[in-house]
Parts: sequence; structure tokens; C-alpha cells
Amino acid sequence: MRQSQHTLSVRTNGKGLIEFTDDVARWLSQEGYTVGVLTVFCRHTSASLLIQENADPSVLRDLKEFFERIAPEYHPYAHDTEGPDDMPAHIRSALTQTSLSIPIVSGKMALGTWQGIYLFEHRSAPHVRQVVLHVVGD
Amino acid sequence: MRQSQHTLSVRTNGKGLIEFTDDVARWLSQEGYTVGVLTVFCRHTSASLLIQENADPSVLRDLKEFFERIAPEYHPYAHDTEGPDDMPAHIRSALTQTSLSIPIVSGKMALGTWQGIYLFEHRSAPHVRQVVLHVVGD
Amino acid sequence: MRQSQHTLSVRTNGKGLIEFTDDVARWLSQEGYTVGVLTVFCRHTSASLLIQENADPSVLRDLKEFFERIAPEYHPYAHDTEGPDDMPAHIRSALTQTSLSIPIVSGKMALGTWQGIYLFEHRSAPHVRQVVLHVVGD
Repeated sequence: MRQSQHTLSVRTNGKGLIEFTDDVARWLSQEGYTVGVLTVFCRHTSASLLIQENADPSVLRDLKEFFERIAPEYHPYAHDTEGPDDMPAHIRSALTQTSLSIPIVSGKMALGTWQGIYLFEHRSAPHVRQVVLHVVGD
Repeated sequence: MRQSQHTLSVRTNGKGLIEFTDDVARWLSQEGYTVGVLTVFCRHTSASLLIQENADPSVLRDLKEFFERIAPEYHPYAHDTEGPDDMPAHIRSALTQTSLSIPIVSGKMALGTWQGIYLFEHRSAPHVRQVVLHVVGD
Repeated sequence: MRQSQHTLSVRTNGKGLIEFTDDVARWLSQEGYTVGVLTVFCRHTSASLLIQENADPSVLRDLKEFFERIAPEYHPYAHDTEGPDDMPAHIRSALTQTSLSIPIVSGKMALGTWQGIYLFEHRSAPHVRQVVLHVVGD
């Protein structure tokens, strides 16, 4: 058994979900594993990870709208020094994922037909987000 | 060190939580690991995973009721072509887990006394859901 | 490749977030891995895990307040035999994490600058919570 690591940079353009499944798949196919497990880790507390449907873009709009409704910007937060979008960003990160674990089967991630890997940006300004990939297997 | 993989099928009967801890434990004991880490991965975006209390069934009813309240069916979603239960299913999946990582200690999953592994079905119709298991260890 | 395991005890003092990043880092540095992946697993259904900002303590207060608002104690839950804080504790656990997977890069967890690992206690009474650590790598 062996292991590999890589850090991806994902550019965001304000709040919303950005799919980066293909970037992960490209790196993985270079590394040449047949069986194993992939860890995807987001190094931020105001952006997070999500596996979601990648067929209909309206799903992403509804998801974004849901999280804006449940953790709104205009609320008397104690933590408000980094702008009105910062504390909701932490809450939205807490409700979604910082890490994902995805089995590798027959040389590919075992994602279902409609599953894509998304970076969920929770801040209003554009950012470059770091996502660490780790795989262990054969 | 070595690794094993298996895909479980979990039959659901409409919305609700279905425990499948015993199916995982049975496969794991056949594979004969003493120490390691198990990954449980759900290949769907309208069903998800949860580790929850398996002592009192009313906990499962309250959990189901909570997610119906927080992500209701009757809401003006943009994504409504697959029925009123589809977009809430994606939201409820986003709020729970697609993957779980469980250490194996002394040949067994390190679950606490009351912890069970559940498939959370978010669609109204019955489905057969695929859950991929991966273990690496000794 | 090799693996190691350890169980940490985290003492809580009623509801709130307790950082234990340093306890994990101390154990990890003793084990001497350069590259690998760490699994952090909470053996409870009324306490959970979260990676969050560890710079401004007001973030933790806002997070606690958010979860009290979204899953309140005073609600007609079916499961009420273990006290008014028990069912909200299960819901808050379902919304956060039972397991985390963190890559190890250059001998350290690949946490971002502001990321800390927290045990989120959801019960009113103090508890001692068990967190299982597992690492596989070189």
C-alpha cells in the first residue's frame, strides 16, 4: 500500500457553490490507484465542502438560498468585526463539511451518477481556497 | 497493512431513518481486521448518513420531524421538476453526512454504547440505496 | 505504512465548544508520522465535533446561540424522558460531525491558520467525552 497528497487551489467569486470534481479526478488518475480511500479537506472556516447533485443548476441556487435564510446576515451576532457575512459564513461551514472521505473503486471515486464535489464559498468577496487531497491505497 | 471494499444495498420505505449497523458489522467481522479505519459512503444526493442513538425510536421520529420543519416541502424552490420532496431531500442531505469515518479498535467499530449507523431516506417513494464500505488496517 | 490509535478524554462543563487541537497535536507528534491521514471520532450522540475558527471567542458564543435557536429545548418532542436538553442534543449532533478526517502534511495536521478542532457539548451537565484518534501513514 502507498499514499499520495496534493493541494488544490479553488478560485471563488463570492457566495455560491463551485464544482471541482474534475480537478480531483484528474489528479487521482495521474496517481494511478485502483482501490483506496480519498480524503478531501478544506483549510478554511468560512468556506466548506459538499457533495451534491450536479445535473440541475437550480439545485445550487436553492441550496444557497436555504443557507442564507437559515443563517442570515442581518442578525445581532457578537462576532461582527469582520463584516456582516463572516459569522453567517462560520455557521454555514458548521452545518456542512470540512472533510469528505470517498472510496476509490476500480480506479475511480465511487461517486453516484449525479454526485459532484463542491466548494461552498460563504464570503461575499472572491477568494482562493485551499483544498488538501490525500489518498491511501494500491 | 491491507484494505477491503464492499457495496451494501439498503432498502428504504419512504422518508425516515433505517439502521444498518449490523450489516456493516457482519461484513467487517468476515474481513477480520483488528485495527483500522472504516469509511462509509452514500452514493446519493437525496439520501444521507447519520450516526444516532439507537435506544429510543422516538429520537428517530423527532429527527425526521425536525428536518421536515427546517427544510419544508412547501416552499417556492427553483428546482421543482422532480417533485416537491426532491429539493428538500437535497437540503437535508447537505445538512447531514455523505461519508463517515469510524476507527476499528480490537476488531470492532469504535461506536459508543448508543451509537447506530443510519441511512436517512429523504424521498417519499421507496428506494434501494447503495452504500460503499472501505476499510484499511491490519 | 503503519497505523496508530489513541482515545482522548475531553471534559466538558455544560453546553459549549471546547477546543482540543493541542491534545491531538501532542499525541500525533509522539507518534512521528510525516505523511498520512488522521481520523477523529466522537463516541456520543449528544456531543459532536466541529472544526471552527479559534481566533475570536465570540464566534463560539454565536455558534452556540445559533444551535439553541434552530433546535430549541422548548418544543413538543416525542423523546423527552432524558430531560429537555436531550432531544435538542441529538439534533445538534446530527447537524454537525461525528467524524473528521484531517490529512497530515510534513508531520503536522493540515489545518488552516484559524482552524481548531472542537468538541461541541450539547448537554447541560458536565460530561467526560471519549474521542478516538486513528492515524495511517508513514
